[in-house]
Amino acid sequence: MTRWVYLFDEVERPDRQLLGGKGANLAEMTRAGFPVPPGFTLTTAACHAFQEAGERIPDVIDDQVMTALARLEERTGKVFGGMDQPLLVSVRSGAPISMPGMMDTILNLGLNAQTVVALAERTGNPRFAYDCYRRFIQMFGDVVLGIPHHEFEHELEAVKTAAGRDSDQAMTADDWQVVVERYLRLVERRLGQPFPQDPRTQLRLAIAAVFRSWNNQRAVVYRKVHKIPDSLGTAVNVQAMVFGNMGDDSGTGVAFTRNPSTGERGVFGEYLTNAQGEDVVAGIRTPKPIAALATDMPAIYMQFMELCDRLERHYRDVQDIEFTVEQGRLFLLQTRSAKRTAAAAVKIAVDLVEEGLIDRETALLRVEPEQLHQLLHPRIREDAGLEVLAKGLPASPGAASGQVVFDADSAAEWARQGRRVLLVRTETTPEDIHGILAAEGILTSRGGMTSHAAVVARGMGKPCVCGCDALVINPQARTCRIGGREVREGDWLSIDGATGRVLWGEVAREQAGFSPEFETLLRWADEVRQLGVRANADNPEDAARARAFGAQGVGLCRTEHMFMAADRVPIVQSMILAQTEAERQEALAQLLPLQEGDFYGILKAMNGLPVTIRLLDPPLHEFLPNLESLVARQAALATRLEYEPGNQALQAEQRQVSELLAKVRSLHELNPMLGHRGCRLALTFPEIYEMQVRAIYQAAARLLREGLQPRPEVMIPLVGHIAELRRMRALVERVAQSVLDEQGVQLPVVVGTMIEVPRAALTAAEIAEEAEFFSFGTNDLTQTTFGFSRDDAEGKFLHTYLEQKVLPDNPFAVLDEAGVGRLITLATEAGRRVRPELKLGICGEHGGDPASIDFCQRAGLTYVSCSPFRVPVARLAAAQAALRHGRA
Amino acid sequence: MTRWVYLFDEVERPDRQLLGGKGANLAEMTRAGFPVPPGFTLTTAACHAFQEAGERIPDVIDDQVMTALARLEERTGKVFGGMDQPLLVSVRSGAPISMPGMMDTILNLGLNAQTVVALAERTGNPRFAYDCYRRFIQMFGDVVLGIPHHEFEHELEAVKTAAGRDSDQAMTADDWQVVVERYLRLVERRLGQPFPQDPRTQLRLAIAAVFRSWNNQRAVVYRKVHKIPDSLGTAVNVQAMVFGNMGDDSGTGVAFTRNPSTGERGVFGEYLTNAQGEDVVAGIRTPKPIAALATDMPAIYMQFMELCDRLERHYRDVQDIEFTVEQGRLFLLQTRSAKRTAAAAVKIAVDLVEEGLIDRETALLRVEPEQLHQLLHPRIREDAGLEVLAKGLPASPGAASGQVVFDADSAAEWARQGRRVLLVRTETTPEDIHGILAAEGILTSRGGMTSHAAVVARGMGKPCVCGCDALVINPQARTCRIGGREVREGDWLSIDGATGRVLWGEVAREQAGFSPEFETLLRWADEVRQLGVRANADNPEDAARARAFGAQGVGLCRTEHMFMAADRVPIVQSMILAQTEAERQEALAQLLPLQEGDFYGILKAMNGLPVTIRLLDPPLHEFLPNLESLVARQAALATRLEYEPGNQALQAEQRQVSELLAKVRSLHELNPMLGHRGCRLALTFPEIYEMQVRAIYQAAARLLREGLQPRPEVMIPLVGHIAELRRMRALVERVAQSVLDEQGVQLPVVVGTMIEVPRAALTAAEIAEEAEFFSFGTNDLTQTTFGFSRDDAEGKFLHTYLEQKVLPDNPFAVLDEAGVGRLITLATEAGRRVRPELKLGICGEHGGDPASIDFCQRAGLTYVSCSPFRVPVARLAAAQAALRHGRA
Repeated sequence: MTRWVYLFDEVERPDRQLLGGKGANLAEMTRAGFPVPPGFTLTTAACHAFQEAGERIPDVIDDQVMTALARLEERTGKVFGGMDQPLLVSVRSGAPISMPGMMDTILNLGLNAQTVVALAERTGNPRFAYDCYRRFIQMFGDVVLGIPHHEFEHELEAVKTAAGRDSDQAMTADDWQVVVERYLRLVERRLGQPFPQDPRTQLRLAIAAVFRSWNNQRAVVYRKVHKIPDSLGTAVNVQAMVFGNMGDDSGTGVAFTRNPSTGERGVFGEYLTNAQGEDVVAGIRTPKPIAALATDMPAIYMQFMELCDRLERHYRDVQDIEFTVEQGRLFLLQTRSAKRTAAAAVKIAVDLVEEGLIDRETALLRVEPEQLHQLLHPRIREDAGLEVLAKGLPASPGAASGQVVFDADSAAEWARQGRRVLLVRTETTPEDIHGILAAEGILTSRGGMTSHAAVVARGMGKPCVCGCDALVINPQARTCRIGGREVREGDWLSIDGATGRVLWGEVAREQAGFSPEFETLLRWADEVRQLGVRANADNPEDAARARAFGAQGVGLCRTEHMFMAADRVPIVQSMILAQTEAERQEALAQLLPLQEGDFYGILKAMNGLPVTIRLLDPPLHEFLPNLESLVARQAALATRLEYEPGNQALQAEQRQVSELLAKVRSLHELNPMLGHRGCRLALTFPEIYEMQVRAIYQAAARLLREGLQPRPEVMIPLVGHIAELRRMRALVERVAQSVLDEQGVQLPVVVGTMIEVPRAALTAAEIAEEAEFFSFGTNDLTQTTFGFSRDDAEGKFLHTYLEQKVLPDNPFAVLDEAGVGRLITLATEAGRRVRPELKLGICGEHGGDPASIDFCQRAGLTYVSCSPFRVPVARLAAAQAALRHGRA
Repeated sequence: MTRWVYLFDEVERPDRQLLGGKGANLAEMTRAGFPVPPGFTLTTAACHAFQEAGERIPDVIDDQVMTALARLEERTGKVFGGMDQPLLVSVRSGAPISMPGMMDTILNLGLNAQTVVALAERTGNPRFAYDCYRRFIQMFGDVVLGIPHHEFEHELEAVKTAAGRDSDQAMTADDWQVVVERYLRLVERRLGQPFPQDPRTQLRLAIAAVFRSWNNQRAVVYRKVHKIPDSLGTAVNVQAMVFGNMGDDSGTGVAFTRNPSTGERGVFGEYLTNAQGEDVVAGIRTPKPIAALATDMPAIYMQFMELCDRLERHYRDVQDIEFTVEQGRLFLLQTRSAKRTAAAAVKIAVDLVEEGLIDRETALLRVEPEQLHQLLHPRIREDAGLEVLAKGLPASPGAASGQVVFDADSAAEWARQGRRVLLVRTETTPEDIHGILAAEGILTSRGGMTSHAAVVARGMGKPCVCGCDALVINPQARTCRIGGREVREGDWLSIDGATGRVLWGEVAREQAGFSPEFETLLRWADEVRQLGVRANADNPEDAARARAFGAQGVGLCRTEHMFMAADRVPIVQSMILAQTEAERQEALAQLLPLQEGDFYGILKAMNGLPVTIRLLDPPLHEFLPNLESLVARQAALATRLEYEPGNQALQAEQRQVSELLAKVRSLHELNPMLGHRGCRLALTFPEIYEMQVRAIYQAAARLLREGLQPRPEVMIPLVGHIAELRRMRALVERVAQSVLDEQGVQLPVVVGTMIEVPRAALTAAEIAEEAEFFSFGTNDLTQTTFGFSRDDAEGKFLHTYLEQKVLPDNPFAVLDEAGVGRLITLATEAGRRVRPELKLGICGEHGGDPASIDFCQRAGLTYVSCSPFRVPVARLAAAQAALRHGRA
């Protein structure tokens, strides 16, 4: 027979999936001899059975509940609904993954007109008994019967006013009895029937309500945000009540065994005397720090400190504990691993190893890699004079400065021109994605911590301040007003996503320092991990930063950004627009020393470590003026000439625009993502790659002569067919060798390829014959495998796909294992078969995503490459992946 | 020891790869007892050895040549360079695949100052001897020594003029002797040394020249055009000369054993008395029809007819024969399978079966499926009054009418608007591809049969007339002049690609009728093939035509063309631009009866056969005005308002354009190919698919009530993830069932999916759970697998890729087996594993390409679907594939 209900002390294996986190912990504490009030747990399987039965408790489960209740009566020596020693219980939810505050709880269940009298008599404390009863009716009425909380508050206020009481503390036993009567009348009035008096009926209704609360809106949203599967279900814990509100020798509190913000050692928490748990949370009375307990109840304090220590040793982790003291007796109501900040997580993990509680591997698995990222966001330098204009919600951490723009198109366009922008909107919508992508940070006047801007910005790791009421935007005038300042489009503003501050101008930022524990943890990670970690870096500064963060080389050095620098664009344009071979060569000759300088700096910063340089990838039209703006200019000029037919200046301008437009049009593409770019460009215009290769090896030769060790690796983009790579490799080897010969130095010429279109992955066996390494460009590979244009998808339909759960994750953030991952696996296997020493890396954004890094470990890749700031994340994620799936 | 040289009568296995086509045939004829002058063959392996040795004949090969030469002297009883009976030889190329006229030939080799005298004496015909000698010096001088042909002609003309001869026939022995002397002086002058007199030296030089000619430019281009691998190499045949120019009892000719144009029975050919082979080709004298031989040389005629019959029976195919009569003795110099027209190929294949020469399977393999297409091109109806304006080269068959445009952009734009256009250009370049694609046909004033326009048009199967000198284009005025007519852009012209005619106006066309042999051959094909053949058809006419051509259903009925009909676009636009749900529903309600009518017609035309209907696929912006033109309009209006600020009409227009532009911009996509289309559209706007499904089943219900058997199958486009298909299938089933219930009829609801993005193929096992069929959309699948946007690739770089042989074929024409094919195979295997009865089809353009159909057979697909005109091609190709790789 399926067992649906377990007493805490009957559980043999505290299974979180079955018993929920709270139930499993209560069972485990009970078994370990901690002072836990007895109780029992209805399993998550019972939750499913409840839902399948159409939201009713099947009889077989009800029978087991009644049996468990009988045992609970035995264990406590009290009787549920009894007149002598009435047993009261709490009924609480407890899912396998903690969802604090999302589901419902009912305390003091079992009280009715008779048992409240018994409780008053047994405790000699009628005020306490009626206080419990009114609490129970109110919670039960709200949670189970669906009578809004405020209607009870209204009754309470009426009694208080009538009796002239200014606080709950001032209420007498008689006052509470009046409240109880009014509450009962309220319920009967609203329900058309009296408040259920039978404790067993109360229990059944409460259990059903908790099961139902799994699907309340709060819980559904919370699960969606935290990616908790809907299928888990919740357990229900029914536990004998203990009372912290039985006088000054009673109390209740919450405590962490260490500081959850900093990770510092020492119990950290607060408590209230003569109170029930909810009072601490409600914030009506100000709780005392836990240290005060040493004076108030010295014995209890000693016992509690000892229990904290035992709990930490038992669970081998920092605990978040709820406790109650009932007339001088200490009970633990709950314990769970404490939620903690990133800094605390790192410090605690390292400290616990040093204290011998856990080993290094456990420590490495304890820290969420994503959290490390938080520690690395640059902070605002507080020493400079800061002008704080306003404060909004701290929606996504990090500090950002940028020129203000008021719409997404401008953000994208300005960013394309190389400007740093801050997107300022009333609120954002999915149509703004391209602007958010392009912006340094986002500031909105409306919306909370879960608004579109906040969610998207956190997803992208962009700083964001939301709901800044002091911000008033005038979109027509392209200005806004904030904290008394008039801000125009193009003005500089800064935001601090960690505090919600909005600051005038551009502010200086500083790198967050690493704590010693941070360094220690990453050192341990490096000892364990098998995947190499490189960084994507296009300039010496990023390369140096990446190296400081522990990168073992550059996995992707894009060269297009070098072409897009404002002072180079005119040269690049003259190369593209060249009418003759000589003109083109002249432009390339101008670019050569600049490129050489770029590569010199990066190779120097990565001295001794490999630098994978991707030759030019984007289509040439990206370097030319926008087609649409030229069309508009042409149309305007043509119209102008209708009114001023003789204007020669206009005529000259028209000729010039027409010429440029013709060239731009000839390069225009319907689907540039799938167009004339990457090695396709080089097959038609080999001069560009020839110049780049020359620049790389000239830079390397200089460094060699300076006694350094440059290690360039040349990467060919967008290869889909072996013949492309064969030709490109021949080009690279020819030019490189001729430079090395000219310069009289020796250096191995290493050539590899991006794998970023499906065909490359599908024909990897052929391609491996010509490639010394594969670097999976998972951004483009995701686009082509899904047939998704990222720009269009994120602006048009991906949001709907994620909302409607058509896709479980954004495949541009988390690698799609079934599709893109399958191609990677096919290519890895085929490539290694042909060339066992083939180096395999990943250089899309997924290279910094822990779940995707886990996949890379399983797929057997050699390294991941990610943005410099994510290098520590990747180091830890790689270590965790190795611990989970390590190769022999 | 490797054997590099074979005498014709020593060959045991006539291997074309080794001996070349001509060598193998000469050996085979010799063995079969046909009267072939003796000789020997240097193998294609010798050609490779020659090239590897740096274009010289290795000694070991030279030794074998000299040995063979000695045997040849024995066989003929003549001596090479001998004074008594001098042996003369021809030296000819002969590749494994016939390349007529592309490589070099030298006749009469072995003549020198001594042997010419001996020949004159032995034959008693000095004129003949010196004629042979001067021919030899001229050919050898041209081919081996590189002295241009015209320099010899110049000398010849000088002698003719001096001697007062008006034709070669009039030349005397003495005249020829003078020519010989002048030729020898010319050679010595140009070479700095005398003409080689040693016959063995002559032979060595000639052999080397033929081997070298494998790489002459003509041959390289020919191989490229005909896709013959460069690696084959050529053999060299050295054969004892026989002379058709020894008097009136001698002659030479060429003949086909049947008419190569019509396939009719009866020997067909022509000959010249007293001539050498080259005279027939040169066209200096007009040859007589072969029948005349019956009178001229009755015995020879009888013998020749008998030999023709024997040759056909021996080779079991129609032969193309070269013969020579030397003083009453008949020799065969060459035989090969005759090249023939499509009509002849079909008739001959069927006739040979009926004559018992070959079986049906051989007949099916004898006809190139692509040729059938030629037979189906609609022809101009000659009964209507046609105004022929001019005649150009018949570059690509078929008749086309269209409105004249003079540039590719206009062609593409007008076609997008649903107009039929004829692209008229001086000549075309790769930049015009999008225009060629969009046009009905192409007409150029310059360029020959191998010009860009001709090659591309033939590749696309578009009618084309090239090099029409009578056409003069004035691009500025957007007019042209042709045959006295002034033609403006937008006027209608027609071309007949089979005859080169250019006609005024739109002309009526008619379907070519099928010959009885055509029907017979396809009936045999149907008995053999395993692949089903369906057609792509979007309207009842195409469906009916496809059915007449033997289609077994519609494999792809696109619904977007229905939306693009001129009278519907406004409704579709109002649907897209709808501000409210009600407005959108109103537009959809207007479309519903129209769509129902569409489906009614197609399902009726395919009564009893399945019709796979693809729900709407393209992005919505395709139905809206072009963004660029709106931008131009807006810019013009804004400028106009600067000059006329108060103009209210302009202001109103500006508001309207701005509104439309905003909507178009909001739908605009950077990469529409990878954008918001297919089922992605339906997930965000389900109403459109709901309307379409309703229309399909309402139409089906009508037909059912009329007693017919509609068999609609609903196909979901662009599925990449099982969740997409699951939702779409639920939508289709829900709407279909509700219509069927409303209408009170029953019909199975069949739902399947396109497989057109790699992810769908990679996750086919999942997708097969929800799909009753897969249809591989290989156009899009090729785009996404390669990461090629077809429009951009064909306009920008694919041409270079094919020219430089980066890719062996255009992957949009011939299915890429290694990449796209691998995905199809993966999906087929995975899909069938999950759902053994899964129907698998292909509906890209590859569905009509024989090589791709061969792949489909090997991959185990259920059917191919192609354009109606290609159905017969596909039927034959499928039969051939089954014969080659048939499943048990």
